[in-house]
Amino acid sequence: MTIWCLYADLVGTPELEQLARRVQAASRLVARAPGPVRDEALRMAADLLEQEWAAVLEANRDDLARAESAGMAAPVQDRLRLSEARLAAMAAGLRTVAGLADPVGEVVDGWVRPNGLRVSRLRVPLGVVGVIYENRPNVTSDAAGLCLKAGNAAFLRGSDSALASNRAIVSVLRRAAAKAGLPEDAVALVEDTSHETAVAFMRLRGRIDCLIPRGGPALIASLLEHATVPYVLDGDGNCHVYVDAAADLAMALDIVVNAKAHRFGVCNAAETILVHAGVAVEFLPAMEAALVAAGVELRGDARVRAVLPGVGLADESDFATEYLGPTVAVGVVDDLDGAIAHIVRFSSGHSEAIVTTDVRAADRFVAEVDAAAVLVNASTRFVDGEELGLGAEVGISTQKLHARGPMGVRELTSVKWVVRGDGQVRR
Amino acid sequence: MTIWCLYADLVGTPELEQLARRVQAASRLVARAPGPVRDEALRMAADLLEQEWAAVLEANRDDLARAESAGMAAPVQDRLRLSEARLAAMAAGLRTVAGLADPVGEVVDGWVRPNGLRVSRLRVPLGVVGVIYENRPNVTSDAAGLCLKAGNAAFLRGSDSALASNRAIVSVLRRAAAKAGLPEDAVALVEDTSHETAVAFMRLRGRIDCLIPRGGPALIASLLEHATVPYVLDGDGNCHVYVDAAADLAMALDIVVNAKAHRFGVCNAAETILVHAGVAVEFLPAMEAALVAAGVELRGDARVRAVLPGVGLADESDFATEYLGPTVAVGVVDDLDGAIAHIVRFSSGHSEAIVTTDVRAADRFVAEVDAAAVLVNASTRFVDGEELGLGAEVGISTQKLHARGPMGVRELTSVKWVVRGDGQVRR
Repeated sequence: MTIWCLYADLVGTPELEQLARRVQAASRLVARAPGPVRDEALRMAADLLEQEWAAVLEANRDDLARAESAGMAAPVQDRLRLSEARLAAMAAGLRTVAGLADPVGEVVDGWVRPNGLRVSRLRVPLGVVGVIYENRPNVTSDAAGLCLKAGNAAFLRGSDSALASNRAIVSVLRRAAAKAGLPEDAVALVEDTSHETAVAFMRLRGRIDCLIPRGGPALIASLLEHATVPYVLDGDGNCHVYVDAAADLAMALDIVVNAKAHRFGVCNAAETILVHAGVAVEFLPAMEAALVAAGVELRGDARVRAVLPGVGLADESDFATEYLGPTVAVGVVDDLDGAIAHIVRFSSGHSEAIVTTDVRAADRFVAEVDAAAVLVNASTRFVDGEELGLGAEVGISTQKLHARGPMGVRELTSVKWVVRGDGQVRR
Repeated sequence: MTIWCLYADLVGTPELEQLARRVQAASRLVARAPGPVRDEALRMAADLLEQEWAAVLEANRDDLARAESAGMAAPVQDRLRLSEARLAAMAAGLRTVAGLADPVGEVVDGWVRPNGLRVSRLRVPLGVVGVIYENRPNVTSDAAGLCLKAGNAAFLRGSDSALASNRAIVSVLRRAAAKAGLPEDAVALVEDTSHETAVAFMRLRGRIDCLIPRGGPALIASLLEHATVPYVLDGDGNCHVYVDAAADLAMALDIVVNAKAHRFGVCNAAETILVHAGVAVEFLPAMEAALVAAGVELRGDARVRAVLPGVGLADESDFATEYLGPTVAVGVVDDLDGAIAHIVRFSSGHSEAIVTTDVRAADRFVAEVDAAAVLVNASTRFVDGEELGLGAEVGISTQKLHARGPMGVRELTSVKWVVRGDGQVRR
């Protein structure tokens, strides 16, 4: 009995199961479609999005009207809102992804065994990639574009508040797929946005090959409890910048301000600044001035407040907090060991930076700090698929399996062993 | 608030949590230990296992006495039984793993960005690798050896029936680790073998970086229901050999017999043979004779029974069954499309083979069959870490994330992005 049979009774509503079967069947055709066909589907989707902008915006206005009457907060409404400019950006994103190198078919490695077997590993699509996401309707085209590029079918479950917008965008994507010669079900939207169906979606084992949740802690908690399909977590970032005794302090100031204040609500923004005790008196006042000028509130430990008496107190919970806003925790540490110990304790394993001219300090930091990305003399804000050269990103993984750090199209693939012989049998 | 805080209340007993903290602390030291130190620990463990064989066998006799009085079935008792020869094989396995190339520190890839950032990805240990396994006490040293080799701490949870044996082996491994300069907690055994503790073990999120379950469907089902830690499934194998119209039939006979009958109880054994209708009349009688001579019972579909009237009927459930024994299902298909359609329907995604001299049939089979391994003119029995050249294997993954197919020491690692700059900030 194969394992997936055990879960046949758990896969939720017949409608969802039926849709999942169709998406899986479509995924097999997408997997075999040549790269240019998949790229053509993305370019056609970009063209159609621009041609049909009026219809998409009208659907979006329906969502916004519902959101307004439901009393949705203004910033959340803003995330839901589409505009001609946002649609143009979505179309541009699809064209960028179409222009990336095709990951499918890449030979990962290979060798010949003493018995003559020729062994290689080829990059292949995952199959069906599920994405559960929240308000932003642009995720619909971004995620579907990356999935198709990597030879996968995109099985999408967006939020209830964006349902009309997502329907309109998915309609565009499906028609573009069909025009390019792919099955329409290469992109599919789960229109039942109930919690029960979301849970059933997470349990489509044997139908979904990889699930990517894009949402907050409640979604992640639900996933950890209920999911039976394999998933990759897009984690949060409690990121640190450590200013070493041997730092170039002008460089450190630039990096700290950029890491904290370039954009507040992003996972690669710095949330804690650690300063070596030997440079605290010189560095902290300049840093305070620059951060305050950038609109940031500082909270410091006792040693910080000995230098900056006007700063509020940072307690343990501050150091554990991903503010995602204009607040930063600041601590003074005795040395590199103190900085590393603090980071080990509070890091979420996303991005950690050191500013130093001391090569030994840099090397120890790189070796001993356990995070998806460690940076020397650069802003944590660079930890992003586009900035690091992946072309586009699906998310940033803070787990250690499958993908760690920014995930590009290659992370939406698997491998297949290919073994060619001339009659070998095992003795 | 970082996500792991959300689960602090779910991590089970205080004893397990305390042990998990110690293992995690040890894992940080193992991760930083040079390769030769980790290799030395493995070689010392091999020496100690041989020196202390009497004590280990005595512990094993205690387990066997308990098993006997509990009425454990003879084949299960056999899996539990150690001998001087089995201990020697365990020691040899540790020495083999010690001799493999160190995966830690390998530069996976790297490049320079237009802004001068030097980006690379380094292979790093996972951290704490949990292993849940059943009777065989040799898994204790095999799994721990592979974990240490890849720079990880090994956090082991074996079966109740092997508790005394596992304690004795873990004691050897811990003393060997300490002698080599690693912390003793680099290898730890969960001695509470209750189901509740197993579930708590699966929920040690933030403490276990990767869990590898080695067991049957009940363990996998429990894992899918309860686990919150990342895991890699070692899947079952409903493997097929397809004998094409253009097969060299003498080669096909060798491969079919080897794939089915070389060893019965293994996941890479063939469970179904598919034969092209054009060669069925010629091939099936010879195949029947050879398989029957090897002690195998055939079950065939109607078209097989038209040629081999003495063969029992194979129904749908036969084609879905991983026999792991001396039985094989046989089907006749019209052509390559029929073979692929059958495999798509029944394959568990482990290993699938074609025997053919037709390059187009081989290429289509390789491209269209979605499995961890596809083989052309070779026995499925080669899908094994050692046979394919990985040196040793932790298991064979049938999932598509992180690792697919045989998993070697490299699959017990993650990557870390290292970004080096000279003051770059994001504009």
